[in-house]
Amino acid sequence: MTAAATRSEHDLLGDRDVPAEAYWGVHTLRATENFPITGTPISAYPHLIDALAAVKEAAALANEELGLLAPEKAAAIVAACREIREGRLHDQFVVDVVQGGAGTSTNMNANEVVANRALELLGHEKGQYRYLHPNEDVNLSQSTNDVYPTAVKIATVFAVRGLLKAMAVLQDAFARKAVEFREVLKMGRTQLQDAVPMTLGQEFSAFAVMIDEDRSRLDEAVELIHEINLGATAIGTGLNAPAGYAESARRHLAEITGLPLVTAANLVEATQDCGAFVQMSGVLKRIAVKLSKSCNDLRLLSSGPRAGLGEINLPPVQAGSSIMPGKVNPVIPEVVNQVAFEVIGNDVTITMAAEAGQLQLNAFEPIILHSLSESITHLRAACLTLAERCIDGITANTEVLRRTVENSIGLVTALNPHIGYTAATDIAKEALDTGRGVAELVLEKGLLPADKLAGLLRPEVVAGSGPALV
Amino acid sequence: MTAAATRSEHDLLGDRDVPAEAYWGVHTLRATENFPITGTPISAYPHLIDALAAVKEAAALANEELGLLAPEKAAAIVAACREIREGRLHDQFVVDVVQGGAGTSTNMNANEVVANRALELLGHEKGQYRYLHPNEDVNLSQSTNDVYPTAVKIATVFAVRGLLKAMAVLQDAFARKAVEFREVLKMGRTQLQDAVPMTLGQEFSAFAVMIDEDRSRLDEAVELIHEINLGATAIGTGLNAPAGYAESARRHLAEITGLPLVTAANLVEATQDCGAFVQMSGVLKRIAVKLSKSCNDLRLLSSGPRAGLGEINLPPVQAGSSIMPGKVNPVIPEVVNQVAFEVIGNDVTITMAAEAGQLQLNAFEPIILHSLSESITHLRAACLTLAERCIDGITANTEVLRRTVENSIGLVTALNPHIGYTAATDIAKEALDTGRGVAELVLEKGLLPADKLAGLLRPEVVAGSGPALV
Amino acid sequence: MTAAATRSEHDLLGDRDVPAEAYWGVHTLRATENFPITGTPISAYPHLIDALAAVKEAAALANEELGLLAPEKAAAIVAACREIREGRLHDQFVVDVVQGGAGTSTNMNANEVVANRALELLGHEKGQYRYLHPNEDVNLSQSTNDVYPTAVKIATVFAVRGLLKAMAVLQDAFARKAVEFREVLKMGRTQLQDAVPMTLGQEFSAFAVMIDEDRSRLDEAVELIHEINLGATAIGTGLNAPAGYAESARRHLAEITGLPLVTAANLVEATQDCGAFVQMSGVLKRIAVKLSKSCNDLRLLSSGPRAGLGEINLPPVQAGSSIMPGKVNPVIPEVVNQVAFEVIGNDVTITMAAEAGQLQLNAFEPIILHSLSESITHLRAACLTLAERCIDGITANTEVLRRTVENSIGLVTALNPHIGYTAATDIAKEALDTGRGVAELVLEKGLLPADKLAGLLRPEVVAGSGPALV
Amino acid sequence: MTAAATRSEHDLLGDRDVPAEAYWGVHTLRATENFPITGTPISAYPHLIDALAAVKEAAALANEELGLLAPEKAAAIVAACREIREGRLHDQFVVDVVQGGAGTSTNMNANEVVANRALELLGHEKGQYRYLHPNEDVNLSQSTNDVYPTAVKIATVFAVRGLLKAMAVLQDAFARKAVEFREVLKMGRTQLQDAVPMTLGQEFSAFAVMIDEDRSRLDEAVELIHEINLGATAIGTGLNAPAGYAESARRHLAEITGLPLVTAANLVEATQDCGAFVQMSGVLKRIAVKLSKSCNDLRLLSSGPRAGLGEINLPPVQAGSSIMPGKVNPVIPEVVNQVAFEVIGNDVTITMAAEAGQLQLNAFEPIILHSLSESITHLRAACLTLAERCIDGITANTEVLRRTVENSIGLVTALNPHIGYTAATDIAKEALDTGRGVAELVLEKGLLPADKLAGLLRPEVVAGSGPALV
Repeated sequence: MTAAATRSEHDLLGDRDVPAEAYWGVHTLRATENFPITGTPISAYPHLIDALAAVKEAAALANEELGLLAPEKAAAIVAACREIREGRLHDQFVVDVVQGGAGTSTNMNANEVVANRALELLGHEKGQYRYLHPNEDVNLSQSTNDVYPTAVKIATVFAVRGLLKAMAVLQDAFARKAVEFREVLKMGRTQLQDAVPMTLGQEFSAFAVMIDEDRSRLDEAVELIHEINLGATAIGTGLNAPAGYAESARRHLAEITGLPLVTAANLVEATQDCGAFVQMSGVLKRIAVKLSKSCNDLRLLSSGPRAGLGEINLPPVQAGSSIMPGKVNPVIPEVVNQVAFEVIGNDVTITMAAEAGQLQLNAFEPIILHSLSESITHLRAACLTLAERCIDGITANTEVLRRTVENSIGLVTALNPHIGYTAATDIAKEALDTGRGVAELVLEKGLLPADKLAGLLRPEVVAGSGPALV
Repeated sequence: MTAAATRSEHDLLGDRDVPAEAYWGVHTLRATENFPITGTPISAYPHLIDALAAVKEAAALANEELGLLAPEKAAAIVAACREIREGRLHDQFVVDVVQGGAGTSTNMNANEVVANRALELLGHEKGQYRYLHPNEDVNLSQSTNDVYPTAVKIATVFAVRGLLKAMAVLQDAFARKAVEFREVLKMGRTQLQDAVPMTLGQEFSAFAVMIDEDRSRLDEAVELIHEINLGATAIGTGLNAPAGYAESARRHLAEITGLPLVTAANLVEATQDCGAFVQMSGVLKRIAVKLSKSCNDLRLLSSGPRAGLGEINLPPVQAGSSIMPGKVNPVIPEVVNQVAFEVIGNDVTITMAAEAGQLQLNAFEPIILHSLSESITHLRAACLTLAERCIDGITANTEVLRRTVENSIGLVTALNPHIGYTAATDIAKEALDTGRGVAELVLEKGLLPADKLAGLLRPEVVAGSGPALV
Repeated sequence: MTAAATRSEHDLLGDRDVPAEAYWGVHTLRATENFPITGTPISAYPHLIDALAAVKEAAALANEELGLLAPEKAAAIVAACREIREGRLHDQFVVDVVQGGAGTSTNMNANEVVANRALELLGHEKGQYRYLHPNEDVNLSQSTNDVYPTAVKIATVFAVRGLLKAMAVLQDAFARKAVEFREVLKMGRTQLQDAVPMTLGQEFSAFAVMIDEDRSRLDEAVELIHEINLGATAIGTGLNAPAGYAESARRHLAEITGLPLVTAANLVEATQDCGAFVQMSGVLKRIAVKLSKSCNDLRLLSSGPRAGLGEINLPPVQAGSSIMPGKVNPVIPEVVNQVAFEVIGNDVTITMAAEAGQLQLNAFEPIILHSLSESITHLRAACLTLAERCIDGITANTEVLRRTVENSIGLVTALNPHIGYTAATDIAKEALDTGRGVAELVLEKGLLPADKLAGLLRPEVVAGSGPALV
Repeated sequence: MTAAATRSEHDLLGDRDVPAEAYWGVHTLRATENFPITGTPISAYPHLIDALAAVKEAAALANEELGLLAPEKAAAIVAACREIREGRLHDQFVVDVVQGGAGTSTNMNANEVVANRALELLGHEKGQYRYLHPNEDVNLSQSTNDVYPTAVKIATVFAVRGLLKAMAVLQDAFARKAVEFREVLKMGRTQLQDAVPMTLGQEFSAFAVMIDEDRSRLDEAVELIHEINLGATAIGTGLNAPAGYAESARRHLAEITGLPLVTAANLVEATQDCGAFVQMSGVLKRIAVKLSKSCNDLRLLSSGPRAGLGEINLPPVQAGSSIMPGKVNPVIPEVVNQVAFEVIGNDVTITMAAEAGQLQLNAFEPIILHSLSESITHLRAACLTLAERCIDGITANTEVLRRTVENSIGLVTALNPHIGYTAATDIAKEALDTGRGVAELVLEKGLLPADKLAGLLRPEVVAGSGPALV
C-alpha cells in the first residue's frame, strides 16, 4: 500500500491512518481493534444498517426543519442515507456485532460512513470533516443512547415481519394437511399411552392453531417495539436536543419507515429500559417451545419404518446414513428442534443482559441485538424449511392408523354408551388377555352390527365436539 | 391404631387401608407413596384447592342440568365444594405438588375429598362410594386433562391478582419518592461513568414507570389464562362429555369464580398446549428483570457510607454485621434480587416442561404449576417487602448529590450553549487537570453570574424535556 | 399472653420483645419480619443446621485453645452445639431460607440459639447475654462471611452423600435389568428410525453406565466443596481473628464433621467466590440431563399398550385415568423428568446469583443454598423412587422385540457379510415393497439355513464388540 | 456456466448436477439446500475440519492395516487428509453448522471432499467414485455416529487449548497488577457497604486466583473429552467394523493428533451420551460467571471520574461519547460481560440439546458443536482483549483510596484492639455525627501516636493473614 492509500484522522486518543477508500473513520478503526470477538460485522444484519440510515435521515430532516442544519448539509446526509437504505455501502459497516460501549461504535460507524459519503456528494473528499462532521452534523441532536435502541427496534420490526410471513406459510402447510387428513382415524395418546380415538386431521389442525396463536402473540410483542426514545439523547433528559426535535424526528422516521412509531412518555425510563426486548424474546421462546414440541411429535409419529409408530411418512430429503442403506431420517424437524434450543438459550442471554443494565443506561444492548436477530432470522429459516421441505410432503399410513384404533383397548371407552359398561369391561378384559382387537371381539360376539360399529368409527363422530378441521 | 381406625378401599391394583378419618382415599394414598419428592402438599397452594373445588362444583351443576346427575347428589357435591372454597378440608389435599401423571393424582385427591365430604352430608360414611362415587359422580363428564389445567389457570389468575396489587403498592411507593425528590439535583450516569445532570425524582420516576408498564404486560398475559378447555375430556374430542356440557360447565364456573372464562375454540390444541403458561412465565421473568435492575441501582446509590456513592440512604431494618458495628446493609433489595434470580430460573424450568409435552397432552403441568406459583407468590412478597421496608423510608443526601453535579466535568455539556464551546472546553480541561469543580471555575472566571448558573441548575431546567415527575 | 411470656432484647435499632421461651432473639425476630418470602424456615435444611452447629462448636474450641474464650463458656457453647447436632432445637431456626444480608440472619439465628441454650446450661436465663453473648462469645473470631459459606459447604457435602447413595441404588437397579435382559434381542434406533440390532441388556447397561459416570463427576465436584474459608472473617484478611485461629478452627471442624476440610490458600478470593457451587450445580444439571434422557427412553419404550412401541412394561403403581379404565401411565419417569427440569432451572438461578457477587462478597448465597439444596434432595428422592417403584419391576415383551428385529430392514446390514451385498439389496427392496420380514425372505429364498440365521441373531453376536453386559 | 462445468452424481433420491470443480458431491449439495439456517458453513470451525481429516486419515490407516483397504487407496486418502490438515480445501466444507441428521451431512461432506481429492491424487477425475468411493472407501468401517462425535471432541480439545492460553495471559496480567498494587491501601466492601481495609493488590490477586482455579477446572473437563467412541459405528455395537478396528483407529488417531485418546469402555453408552459436552459447557459457564463478576468489579471501581468510586483508571481505548466530550467508557469489560451472557445462554442450549437425545443416539450434536465452539472462541477473544486492552493499562488512584480508609468508619474495627472497644465506639459515633475521619479523630484525641497509626495502616499489616500477593 502506498502512502497515498491512507488518510489521517484524529480523535481524543490521537492520530490514526485509515484506508483512503474507507468510508468509515478513526472511531470505527479503533472499535474493530478493540472488539475482535465474533468476526461478524454489523453488516450481517442488513435491517440494522437500513434502520441506522433511516434514523440518521430522520434526524437530519428534523435538524434542518429546526434550523440547526444547513439545507445543503441536510440534503447530502439524506442522500447518503438513502443510498445505504437502497443497499449500498453496507460493506462499510465493519464493527463487530458484539461490542462494548452500548452501541457507540455502531453509531460512530454509521456517522462516519454517512458523513464521508455525504462529503463526496458535496464534492469534497472523504475525511474533510470541516465541511461536514460525523459528530457535529450527522449525529446532531443525537446520542448513541437514543439512536442505537431506536435503530435496533426498527430493525427488529422489519425482521419480525419476515418471521411472521414464514409462520403463516408454515401454518398454511399444517392446515392443508389437516384438511387432507380429516378422515384419517387414529388413536390419540396421553402420556404416550393409548387414549381415545381422534383423526389425524385434528392432530395437524392443532399444529396449525398453535402457530396461529403464536402469530398473535408476536403481533402484540411487536407493538411494544414501536415505542422509541429518539430525542432522549444521553439519559432521557433531552439535553442538547432542542424543543420540538423529538417530535419532528419521530414524524420523519415514521414516514421513512412506514411504521407507527410513538415516542415514549417517560424518556428517562425508556432510555434505560430493555423490557420490550425481553418481552419479544419471551415470545420468540414461546414460539420455539411450540415448534419444538410439534417437531418432536412429527419425529415420533414417523418413527419406524418397522419398529416405530409408523403413522406418517416424512418426505425423504437426503440419504440418512452411509452405513445403513435406505435409512431416511427426520432431518428437517431435527434442525428445527436445534434452532428452538438456540432461541431458548438466547432468551437467557437476553435476560441476563437486560438485568445487568445500571442506572440511566443498559450498556449491553449489542448482545441483545445480536441474540434477538439470530433468534428471529433462524426461526424464520426454520419455519420455511419445515413447511416446504417437510410438512408439504407428509403422507399418512391410513391403514396402520385405522388398525391401531380397531385393536386398541381404548376403543371400549367410545363403545361404552352403546354396548353397556359390563359388556365393555368384559370385552376390554378379553382383549387384554388374548391380544385380540376390540372391534373384532365386538363383532364376533354380535354386540354391535358391523355397520353400526363402522358408523361409530366414522371420523366425524370420533372427532366429536372437537374443533372443525380447518 | 385399632382396626376401626381404617377403612378399606379398592382400585385396579388391589385393596388398601386408609385412615378412617381421612377424606382422601386409595388413589391419594398411592400417590403420596409414589411421589415423596418435595414434601410440599398441594394444599400449600390454597388458590389451587379453591379452583379445584370450583371446577368440581361447576361440573356437578352442569351434569345436573343435563340430567346426568341426580339433584341430591349434585347438591351434596356442591355443598362439599363450597366448604372447601370457604377454606375447610384444605389439609386433606396431601399429594405432593411435584407428581407424575399430568395432575391425575391432584384430580383424584379432589374427587375423593369431595366425594367423602358429600357422602357425610348425605348421611353416609366415608368410603361408601356406592352412594356417591369419586370417579363416576364427582368426576362425571370430566378428565384430569381438562379439570387440572382449568384449575391451574383459575388458581393462577387469583394469584396474579395478588401480585398486581403488590406491584401497585410498590409503584406508588416509587412514585411518592419521585415527587419527594423532584428538586434533588444529581448526576446521571451511563456505563457507570458521569454523564449529564438530572433529578433524583426522575430516577425514581423511572422505577415507577417500569412497574407500571410491567403491570400492563401482566394484565395482558392474564387475559390468555381465561381460556379454558373444560369439556375437552381426555384429548380434546370431548369423548364422554355430552353435548352442551362444555358450555354449561363454563357458564357455571364463570359464575362461581367471577372470571370472564371462555372455552378454547380448538379443544384438541388447547388440551396439549402450555403456551399461556410459557407466556405468563415470560412476563414474570420480565418483571423480575426490572425489579432486579432497580434493586441493583438502589444498592449502588446507597453504597457507602464513606467509600461509596452515598447518594441515598436505605432505612436500616436490621443490624448488618456482628463483626463490624454499625454496619447497615441493603438487605431488602438483596432479597428481592434473589427472588428475581429464582423467577428467571423457574422460567427455564417451565420452558423445558412445556417443550416436553408429547402428542395430545403435556404430562408435566405439575412442575409448571409449582414453578409458576412459586414465582408469583415470591414476587408478590418481594414487592410488598421492598415497598414497605425499603422504598418508603429512603432519604436523599441532597448536598452530596448537588456537589457531584457542581464538581462534574459533565456539567460542561449543559453549559455549552451559554458560555460557548471554546470556553467550555477550556474549563473542562482545567477541571480535569486541577481536580477542581466546573461550577467553581465558571464563577471564578466570571463566565456566568452566580444567579444565572443557579438558574441553569434549577431542577426543572435540568429535568429538561424529560417526563413529568409524577 | 401475659407480660411474663416475653423478654426484651436490644439491638442497634432499639428494643423488641421476643417470646420468653424462644431460643432465638431480636436479630432473628427482625429477620423473620424482613423476609416473609417463601415461608420455608432454614430448619427445612437439617444438614445446614447441623453444619452451623458444627462450625460454632469448632470456633468455640479454637477460641478456647487460643485463650480467647473462658473454658466454661466454651464448654457450654460446645454442649449446646452438640444438642443441635443431635437434632434438638432445630425448630428454633426460623428465618426464611431466602433472605437478604448474605446469610447474616442465618448466622445471627444460630448465634442466638446457641447462646441461649448455653446460658441455660450455665444456669442462667435466656437473654442474659452479659454472661454469654451471641456475638461476642458465640460468634467470636468469626464473621457471617466465613461462617455461612463454610456451613453451606458442609451441609452440601452431607446432602450430596445422600444423593450419591441414591444414585448407586438406581445404578444397581439398571445393572440388574441389564443382566436380566442380556439375551433379549431388539432393534436399536438412531434418530427414532430403525437402525441395527442390539440387546435390551445393552440398552439398560447404558443407563447404568451413565449413572456410574455421573457419580464420578459428583465425587469430583464434592472435593472442591471441602475447601473452606473459615478464619477469613469479613473479607478474607482475617481481621479480628487471631493468628492460628483459622488452622485451629479448621482442625476442630474436620474432626467434628469427619470431612477432609482444607483452608483456601487465598482467603480474599475464597470469600467472594462461588465457583465451587456453580461447579456443583453444573454437575447436578448434568445428572438431571442424563436422568431425564433415560426417563424419556423408558416412557418411549413402554408406550402402548397397542399403538406404541410396547417393548417393555413399567410396573403399574397407581390407576392412570378415571375416564379410561385400565390405563396405566409412566408416572414415575414423569416425576423424574420434572425434577430434572427443576434442577436445570435451579442451575440458572445459581448462575445468576453467582454472577451477581460484587467486590469482596457474594451477598446472594442464600438463594444458592436454597436452590442447591432443593436440587440435591429432589434428585435423591427421584433416584430412589425411580429405582424402587419403576426399574425394579420392569418386564420385557421379548416376543415383540424379537419380531421387530426379524421384520426390520435394518437386519440386512447385519446379514450383508453372509449373503452378499447384491442379495442383501434385493431382499431389502422386496421387504420394503411387500411389507414382509427380512428373516422370513432370507429363509424362503434359501439364502441362509435356519440354524445359521438363528446363530447370527444370537444376542452375544448381535451385541458385537459392544460392552460386557454387567 | 457451460454444460462441461458440472458433473452428475447419484444418491437414493436420484441424480443431481454438482459444479465440476467442487470437491463436495450430491450429499453435500442436498444438505446445503435442506439447511439454509445460519449461513455459517462448518469451515468456520477450522479445528473441526482438521479433526474430521484426522479421523478419516486414522480410519484409512486402520482399514489398511486390517487388510480392508488397498494400500494405494489408503495412501491417497491419507494424502488428501494431510492436505486438509495443512489448511487446504477448507472452503469445500460448505454445509451449515446447524443441521439435522446428527452430523451426517458434515460426515458426508468430509467423505466427498476427501474422496474427490484422493481421486485426483490417483490420477482420476472428481466424481469417478468407482475408483474410490466416499462411503465405501473413505467412510469404511465408520458411521457418522462415531466419526462426528469423535471429530467434535478433538476439535474441542484444540479450541480449549487456545482458551487455556488466553486465560493464562489474563491471569498473568491480573497477577502483575497484584504485585504493582501490593502497597495500595483501600477499603474492602461487602454488600457494597464499606467494610474493613485491604490492599488493592489483594483485590487483583483474587481476580488472578479465580482464573487460575478455572484453568484447573477446564483442564479436568478437557480430560473427559479425550474419551472417544470411534469403532462404535451406528449404535455402539461396532456392526460392520471388524475386530481390532477400534483399537487400531484410536492408536492412529492418537498419533496423528498427539492427544491421549482412549476408547470408551461401553460404546453403546458412549454413542448416545453427551455428558462430556454438558460438563465442558458447565465449566465454560463457570468461567463466564467469574469473568463477568470481575468485569463488573472493574467497571465499579473505575466509575466516575467525579461522581463514582474512582479507585482505578481503565486505559482509554476509544472515545466514549459523541455528545459528552472527554467521556471514556469501560468498553472492554463491557464486551467481556456480553460474551459471558452469551456463554451462559449457550449452556442452556447445550443442556436442552443433550436432554433431547433419544435411545441410541443424540441427533442434536450439531447445535452442541456450534454453541460450544462459539463459547470457547468468544471466551478466548474476550480474555485476550481484556488482558491486553484493559488490565495491562490499569492505574490506581492511590490517594483517593488511602483517604477512603482514613475516613472510613470501618477503620474502627481495625483499631479496636489498640484503643479499646469503648474508645472505638465513641470515635465511630463522633465520626458518624460529624462526618469527620476516624484517623483524624484518633490523632486529635491522642489515642494513638501518628507513627503507631501509620504502622497499623501499613499494607502488610492490613493484608493480614490473607494470601501472599503473587
